[in-house]
Parts: sequence; structure tokens; C-alpha cells
Amino acid sequence: MKDMSDKGLLIVGEELCQQLVGRRDAFDAVEAVFGAMARGDAYNFPVIREAIGYADALYGFKSGFDRAGQVLGLKSGGYWPGNMDKGLTNHQSTVFLFDPDTGKLAALVGGNYLTAVRTAASSAVSIAHLARKDSKVLGMVGAGHQSAFQLRAAAEQRDFEKVVAWNPHPEMLPRLGEVANEIGLEFEAISQEQLGAQADVIITITSAFEPLLMKDWIKPGTHLACMGTDTKGKQEVDAALVASATVFTDEIAQSISLGEAQHAVVDGTLNEERIIPIGAVINGDHPGRTSADEVTLFDGTGVGLQDLAVASVAARLAEEGGHAQRAVL
Amino acid sequence: MKDMSDKGLLIVGEELCQQLVGRRDAFDAVEAVFGAMARGDAYNFPVIREAIGYADALYGFKSGFDRAGQVLGLKSGGYWPGNMDKGLTNHQSTVFLFDPDTGKLAALVGGNYLTAVRTAASSAVSIAHLARKDSKVLGMVGAGHQSAFQLRAAAEQRDFEKVVAWNPHPEMLPRLGEVANEIGLEFEAISQEQLGAQADVIITITSAFEPLLMKDWIKPGTHLACMGTDTKGKQEVDAALVASATVFTDEIAQSISLGEAQHAVVDGTLNEERIIPIGAVINGDHPGRTSADEVTLFDGTGVGLQDLAVASVAARLAEEGGHAQRAVL
Repeated sequence: MKDMSDKGLLIVGEELCQQLVGRRDAFDAVEAVFGAMARGDAYNFPVIREAIGYADALYGFKSGFDRAGQVLGLKSGGYWPGNMDKGLTNHQSTVFLFDPDTGKLAALVGGNYLTAVRTAASSAVSIAHLARKDSKVLGMVGAGHQSAFQLRAAAEQRDFEKVVAWNPHPEMLPRLGEVANEIGLEFEAISQEQLGAQADVIITITSAFEPLLMKDWIKPGTHLACMGTDTKGKQEVDAALVASATVFTDEIAQSISLGEAQHAVVDGTLNEERIIPIGAVINGDHPGRTSADEVTLFDGTGVGLQDLAVASVAARLAEEGGHAQRAVL
Repeated sequence: MKDMSDKGLLIVGEELCQQLVGRRDAFDAVEAVFGAMARGDAYNFPVIREAIGYADALYGFKSGFDRAGQVLGLKSGGYWPGNMDKGLTNHQSTVFLFDPDTGKLAALVGGNYLTAVRTAASSAVSIAHLARKDSKVLGMVGAGHQSAFQLRAAAEQRDFEKVVAWNPHPEMLPRLGEVANEIGLEFEAISQEQLGAQADVIITITSAFEPLLMKDWIKPGTHLACMGTDTKGKQEVDAALVASATVFTDEIAQSISLGEAQHAVVDGTLNEERIIPIGAVINGDHPGRTSADEVTLFDGTGVGLQDLAVASVAARLAEEGGHAQRAVL
């Protein structure tokens, strides 16, 4: 993001982000930055994450530099569990973009909507590159706020006919069903075993600490995008399922330490060398899926460069459209 | 910094910071946060510092939370060596303050002037608490941009009569002499040995990688504030001088790893247990100087909480005066 010094700092609020950044924009931005990461043209800095000892909050930063896209910055924010009671979302994010030529702050972008969109784009990118072309049934494990974003983005990648879903709290499923119907897909709430037996593509998007899907429940040829595990101790699927799949990820260092792969790595049934950066597939340096029976699994851990990539799109579109607020620092 | 949601995000630019934040404000804010750090009421998060592999830039973040002062945030920025040619300062800093109750971004504060002021406040706080009351001669080692800030802040702490100064590039000394004269102090450019022999208080503020002052040159009872060393390998004074002094610091972890104390620690002539947080003196939990002959040395490494403290003053004053820009995120 180049600095527009003469016009001042660009400020792109949450509402403008929602108006400007569509699923296609987010998909393209996330796909490009995953490619840049795999080529060594973009890298994430160490993540800061602190329990601040106040308001039960988790606070921190994800940051990085994409030399290819000329995007430098950070996403700050965290999780404030008491926010809901105050009419705010518990997750609070803001993205700051700097001019890589001068270090000047160039843009300030609301990060709440963009975080949802970039996470959805991440599983969509994995589906585009790894799922069987003839996938018909999309399985959703999880029905929280984020699941609707994942569903909408995934639905655009294959000619799905039906969504099957399971959630630890079944009362949340009808809302996800409405989203499915809205985009013209049949919807059925089913058991975890049935979901494994029917789905060609499965997205897991929960905060689980126990496996919700076992290896034996999954069909050959399934593609899984495990999007919920972002912390040591969390787990969405059977470690044996991870170990038996061809595993792809956004960032290997996170995948083995705090992503879905952590448990199979601890078990010794998976090692780092067997995990493939999704960017290598995007760049054509890895074939991705090689047979119709192969189980592919994308461990989406979430990296700062995804946030910066979509925020950079928001800033560019706001700049071009003359929509953004300006300030002078 | 509490969020002023109904009025929007507060934006306090560089010029407003210069108008609003005086030396006394900075002194009080830095002294208070050093005290809070020593009581365990405030802590700095790990520092991120990256050579980004572009424009020779060093980029990173310092961040922390002061529970006592309710200040949460980060300073981002870094060093862009090519900026001078573009009419910008090489050091670029911006401070972001968040509401600790909700995680919402509350204020954006220009950090260039404030970084200079908080660094000056830091050595001034050390002089106020550690230098002999009868100090008459202030020694300045270093005459760059930052040295004038250090001099002005130091001059207010004791009844100094004279400034003696040395700089690796002597042609820069007259500018510092003008500052001394402006505040009514005699000024003399002298050799390093003469400086050690005359000065009661010495501030070092250089980017040196070799000792500029040796132990034997210093008078008994001298107070030194070593402000330039902030990286592994940098050094301003003789390790034997550090080892023989009573050593105080802003943050022990930084002092031993990247501050002036690093070399004596590596030599084995100083250990962590002998380094005293300046906050303990501020809080009355350590006596500070205990004799007129004692050499005291403050290792000022620079912590994120100092930046947040002065930025929080800027935001509060801007808020109260109705001066700041506003934006909605």
C-alpha cells in the first residue's frame, strides 16, 4: 500500500469494507498471497498473543510483508468475551497498512468483516485447488457466525447440490440452513457419521477441543478444510484422519504447532516434511490432488498476510472510489 | 485509553503532539509507567523487529498493557534509511491505543516526536532519582538529533551550570551548543577524557559499537544515563564501568540482552540480579543512590510502554481540548 502523502492517511471503516470487498476480491487476494508465501516473496512475522490479565481478553498482532504485492502491515486485535453484552462483537480487529518505501502509515482498515471474509476465502481457495471437480455434497461441521461466510464462499467453487451439516448446538443449524437455501442449495441437518458418509467436501469451523469427525466416517476422495483450530490444544478431526490424508496448509510452522496437524505431529504419525504449502499448488509447483480416491486436508491456520491482503484490496477500492475518510498524521 | 465510541476514533497528528505534550507531561507519564512496571501492574509484550528485505528497512512493533493506567496498545514503525532523501525522517513511528474494556481502537497518535520526548524523559527520570543533588556539570556524549531532547529534559532536573560535550563527528557539536546556550548553560566541546573528569552527570546518546568512555575517566559519584544501546552489539561505555557501577534500567530483560549491560553480562562481570528496575526506586522500594561517591548507571533500553504512556497523554489532551481529528471505523 503506497502512501498517498498529499491526501493523508486513508481510513476505511467496517461498513465500507462490507460494501467494497466481495468474495471474489477476497479469494483472489488470498490465493495470490498464499502463492507469494510459497515462492518466498511474502512472509509472516512472529505472532504476538497475550492474555492481558484484564477483561479476560486475549490481545495480539499478526503481521508480515508481501514483497510481491508491496503490502506491509499488521492486524491488531483480539477476543473480548464480554463484548457481546455491550452490543459489540467479541472479536475486534483493525488492520494497519504501511508504505514499504517509507514506513509511513498509509491506511487504517476495519478488520472485523475482513477477518470473516479472508477466513472464508482460505477454505474456498483450498476447495478450488484440491476438491474433486465432481463434488456434489458440501458438509459443514459448525454453525456459528463464521460458518455462513465459509458456506457462501465454498458454494461458488463447485456445482454443489446439497449441504449437510452438524453442530454441537443443533439449535443453531436452521440459520445456516437459511443461508444454504438462499443460495439455492438443499440443506439437511444430520449426524457426524452421516455427514462423513455423504459429503464430498467438508469444512470444519468450530472451537472444539476434541475430534468431531473420525477417520473411518470419511469417504475416499473427500476434501476437508479444517478452519477452526488456531491454538495449541484445539482439535476438530481425528489425528488418524490427518495422518492418512495428504495435508496442505497456509503456513507449515503454524500448522504443526497450533493448527489441526499438531496432534498427528505429536503422535509421530505426521511430520513436517509431509505437509505441503497450498501456495505450491497455486504456483503449479505441486500437483495437489493426484487421484479421485485421495483424501486431501487443508489445515487453515490463519496468517497475518491474509488479513493484509484483503485490507489492501479494501484500501485500493476505497481510494479508487473516493469513498474513504482521510486524516493527517 | 477508553474508547469514545460515539465520537469515533481519535486521531492525533505529529503537529498536535508537539503542541500538546510538554517535557513535564512526558516525565510524569514515563515515571508513572516505570513505577507500574516495577510493581507488576504494567508489562511489555515481546518485541517484533524484522529486517524486511526491502528498502533496507527495519520494521517492527513494541507493545504492552498498563493495567494501572488503563493503557493498551502498540507502537509500530521502524527505520527507513532512504527517507532523508525524500524529505522524511528515517525513523517512522505511529502509536495505536485500544480500549482495554472492549479491544476497540480508540486512538491513533503520531509517534515520531513522542519517541524523542519519551527517550528524553527516560534519562531525565533517571537523573531526578539517581544523580547527586549538587550536580553542576552535564556531559553529553553524542550530538545528533536526539541529543537536544536529552539535554533539554536533563537540564530541568538539577541546577546545572555547564554542559561539556563530545561527539564522534565534532562538526555537529555547535548545534548542541546553541541548545545549551538557549537554556542559559555554558557549553564546551572537550575530549572524552576531559568530559569524564568534569561531568557529574553524563548522557550517552550515540549509535556506537565501541566504548566511548572508559571506567578510569569517570569521577566517583557520577551518574550515567546510557541511552543509545538498543541492539545486540551496540556499546557506548566500557563494560568495566558498567560492572563497577550500581546499574538501574527500564526493563531488565532488555538491559541484559540488547542494552548497555549486555557486554558486562557476557563478560560475567555483571549478573541480572545486580540490575535494579528504576521503577523500584520510583516506588520507594529501593533507595537508589546510597553514597556521594557511588557511580550510578541507568541503562535506558526503551520500552513500548513508554511510548504508550506519552501517546495516552497526547490523546487525553487532544480529547480535552477538542483539537483532534475524528474518524469512524
